[in-house]
Amino acid sequence: MSRNMLIAALAAIALLAARPGLAADAKQMEDNKKAVAAFYDAALNQKDFDAAAKYLGNRYTQHNPGAADGPEGLKGFIAFLKDKFPNNRSEIKRIFADGDYVIVHVHAVREPGTRGNAIVDIFKLENGKVVEHWDVVQPIPEKPANNNGMF
Amino acid sequence: MSRNMLIAALAAIALLAARPGLAADAKQMEDNKKAVAAFYDAALNQKDFDAAAKYLGNRYTQHNPGAADGPEGLKGFIAFLKDKFPNNRSEIKRIFADGDYVIVHVHAVREPGTRGNAIVDIFKLENGKVVEHWDVVQPIPEKPANNNGMF
Repeated sequence: MSRNMLIAALAAIALLAARPGLAADAKQMEDNKKAVAAFYDAALNQKDFDAAAKYLGNRYTQHNPGAADGPEGLKGFIAFLKDKFPNNRSEIKRIFADGDYVIVHVHAVREPGTRGNAIVDIFKLENGKVVEHWDVVQPIPEKPANNNGMF
Repeated sequence: MSRNMLIAALAAIALLAARPGLAADAKQMEDNKKAVAAFYDAALNQKDFDAAAKYLGNRYTQHNPGAADGPEGLKGFIAFLKDKFPNNRSEIKRIFADGDYVIVHVHAVREPGTRGNAIVDIFKLENGKVVEHWDVVQPIPEKPANNNGMF
């Protein structure tokens, strides 16, 4: 090992020592994205509570003001969707992760052929499992003020 | 340098070679968060287009369906806010970054004493400057189905 390589190696060790969680965090965040995408598809497209529940942790704190708290609230919401909007399709357009959070930007169409809603969901994960949910939902307007679309 | 330290150093180099952008990305993402927080405050609380414009890049692609495209659209929106809702306060509750994107979860109150809106804004940045914007806006309902609040 040359002197230069030694210096590079020591610099690399120093950097990793200063930011020990970087690589581990990146891996966990990628895993969290995959878990949320699978959870989302199971809940909103497959409308299968049992399949979705595999991604839940020991709680599901609900901030959507239209849904009851907890896993039971999610179960009720999926049953409502299956009954009233069996053709609902929720398509993830963008997915982000930062720390324990995963954020999805979604186009949700309850009835095929309608404009549908723009949605952002925020999920908190613990140990790779979904434990908390916030969202914001807005109907896509007929006549937007620009031609860029909402996605 | 011992044999074990050599092995550790080589492992560290291999990891950094595999993930060369990790530390640089983390720094850029923190800088992006600061830029978006300052941009947001200048535009929506100070309602000062010139102050906000310092954070804009060479374009401002607008996906909010109520606002015209480009920096001029932002200028018009700030003028509208200043005229109709001079007391508007937009409070960032959470801020996230992933790659070139910064996401903020916001409680916006146009008239003091009203419940206001839950908003998620997504900004794309290039070279630390804001170049694109999406958002989703939902009025906070009077009677939510759970007691957790929208934030």
